[in-house]
Amino acid sequence: MMYETKNLNQNSIEMANKHINNLTMPSWALGDLLDIGVKLSGIQGVFPPKIEEKRIYIFACDHGIVEENVSLFRKEVTEQMVRNFVSGGAAISVLSRHAGAGTVIVDMGVDADLSDLVKRGDILDRKISMGTENFSKGPSMTLDQAEKSLKIGFELVKESYNENDIYAIGEMGIGNTTTSTAVVSGLLGSEVDLITGRGTGIDEKARLHKVDVIKESLQKRKIERDESPLSVLQKVGSYEIGAMTGMILGCASFGRPVVIDGFISSTAALLAFKINPKVIDFMFLGHRSMEPGHKVIIEELGLSPLLDLNMRLGEGSGTPLAMNLLEASCKILSEMATFESAQVSRENEVQ
Amino acid sequence: MMYETKNLNQNSIEMANKHINNLTMPSWALGDLLDIGVKLSGIQGVFPPKIEEKRIYIFACDHGIVEENVSLFRKEVTEQMVRNFVSGGAAISVLSRHAGAGTVIVDMGVDADLSDLVKRGDILDRKISMGTENFSKGPSMTLDQAEKSLKIGFELVKESYNENDIYAIGEMGIGNTTTSTAVVSGLLGSEVDLITGRGTGIDEKARLHKVDVIKESLQKRKIERDESPLSVLQKVGSYEIGAMTGMILGCASFGRPVVIDGFISSTAALLAFKINPKVIDFMFLGHRSMEPGHKVIIEELGLSPLLDLNMRLGEGSGTPLAMNLLEASCKILSEMATFESAQVSRENEVQ
Repeated sequence: MMYETKNLNQNSIEMANKHINNLTMPSWALGDLLDIGVKLSGIQGVFPPKIEEKRIYIFACDHGIVEENVSLFRKEVTEQMVRNFVSGGAAISVLSRHAGAGTVIVDMGVDADLSDLVKRGDILDRKISMGTENFSKGPSMTLDQAEKSLKIGFELVKESYNENDIYAIGEMGIGNTTTSTAVVSGLLGSEVDLITGRGTGIDEKARLHKVDVIKESLQKRKIERDESPLSVLQKVGSYEIGAMTGMILGCASFGRPVVIDGFISSTAALLAFKINPKVIDFMFLGHRSMEPGHKVIIEELGLSPLLDLNMRLGEGSGTPLAMNLLEASCKILSEMATFESAQVSRENEVQ
Repeated sequence: MMYETKNLNQNSIEMANKHINNLTMPSWALGDLLDIGVKLSGIQGVFPPKIEEKRIYIFACDHGIVEENVSLFRKEVTEQMVRNFVSGGAAISVLSRHAGAGTVIVDMGVDADLSDLVKRGDILDRKISMGTENFSKGPSMTLDQAEKSLKIGFELVKESYNENDIYAIGEMGIGNTTTSTAVVSGLLGSEVDLITGRGTGIDEKARLHKVDVIKESLQKRKIERDESPLSVLQKVGSYEIGAMTGMILGCASFGRPVVIDGFISSTAALLAFKINPKVIDFMFLGHRSMEPGHKVIIEELGLSPLLDLNMRLGEGSGTPLAMNLLEASCKILSEMATFESAQVSRENEVQ
């Protein structure tokens, strides 16, 4: 399957730059807020860009690797947290309400019967299976399943991009920092020990065990230096990471900005980037996570995270606050007065 | 005049810490958002803290030092920008609307007739004089005027703290990066060249001229190593900086959080800190400014700015976005579910 991306609209970018230079402030004095506005103009292909309809997609999935005792929480917490999202008590629920962003919860492979939530329309059923396989014993999924996960994310954008000005991605899945670390090391060859963090809060002994599990698994799964992104996803990845990857490709294909959360969703960003580097143009990093593996992804992508608040929660929790900044940026472009309209003297107009 | 500060409420702080540990997330996984919530609990003396009524005070003043050709914009721009604030076209107007924060514009000493705005209730008239004196030729103001400027800021909090959950400060005054640089160097003994920036956008030649003006003025005004903050304000400061200093002291006195903007309002924060170091407990730095002098203030205060967006505009423009983060933090404390209420298994509850 081919995922083509749009090009940024150079005409809108030019209009944005020109307009910004006429706004009542010293040259480029709002810094990154202005760069953001220019990028959004290019992505949406209009000037001024607008961010009103904001949607955060949270992809949930269970991970076979949890059998290896890599997490502080047991697997059941994935289902429990999905129910917490639905009832509005999770961090992402609170923060998305605060930002005026809608959430869509997608079951990609939670190992539980969520049919009550599906029937009530509280979540979308895209379950590929009852969770991934334990990748220390065999591949996480089949190639078909990997492709399917990408397609699910892509199609969700295709179906909804006319209604949404901006997307954000988040996830839930006990064990998914382990999966992400394996994927990142598989893609970049990073030293596992350096990029393995404490996830939900394991101690150093447990972290070293996690490192061992990941290292052994990568050897067993025989990941080559130039392994394709899809193959890495299949061997040591997971469905929610695949779906987020597909959603990013979808945003780049249909011209919508997408805000990435922390380590796990940035792993999807890295996969999307390896599939098509042009996705960078459509992407914003919501924040800098405390997870050590996030740093190497940020460096590889070459993007600056918008916020740096020592967060490490996931769920998409770093995206609503970032969306708020992007929205502010749009309003600067559409609502500020120009020197002419406000009758303010320009610089160098002395005497 | 004595400015007493409150103490943080330790009981509320304890309640906040205890509550946070029961919320459905790994331990302290929302990082700074949680630290902010604890600090706000201590400041407001209640749990959970709340931020609904948000007010940004913008203090405007003209600066005699502008005669020395230190700015790219002419003095008239101070008045023009005040009118732009009133009509809602300035950056701070747009961003405060976005954050749902009210603005109060205070004339501390604009060298123009603003009586039409005062009559319409668009601005507050606290004009001390038609601008400060040129501090390269004599002190910026009298000691009486310096004390008066502090008192104005303090009284504004005293009159309004029952209606406001949080304050922010901003300013307008062509020439006020020059004034701030002189005040900071006067207070900390910082090398003038290192902390003199490009203000509204002057080139390197003009910046070196600005350095010379400030250095000479500091010598002429005979600022001693242990000069009192009030004396530094009087000799090389300005009314809007004095009023912001007083507002910070007022917030610390009446138990309200105050968000500081960039270099100029942080100069006021530094003055308030030198008057009473306990103000730190009530203060949040909205963002990290591009102005080089901001760095030394941040280090002296020992606080981390909430945002880092390469802004250098002033007006209070860095505060609405920061207020939005603080508001989010309050909602996390009041709206998130606990492990018990959401029936989510805690960490280590394996089997």
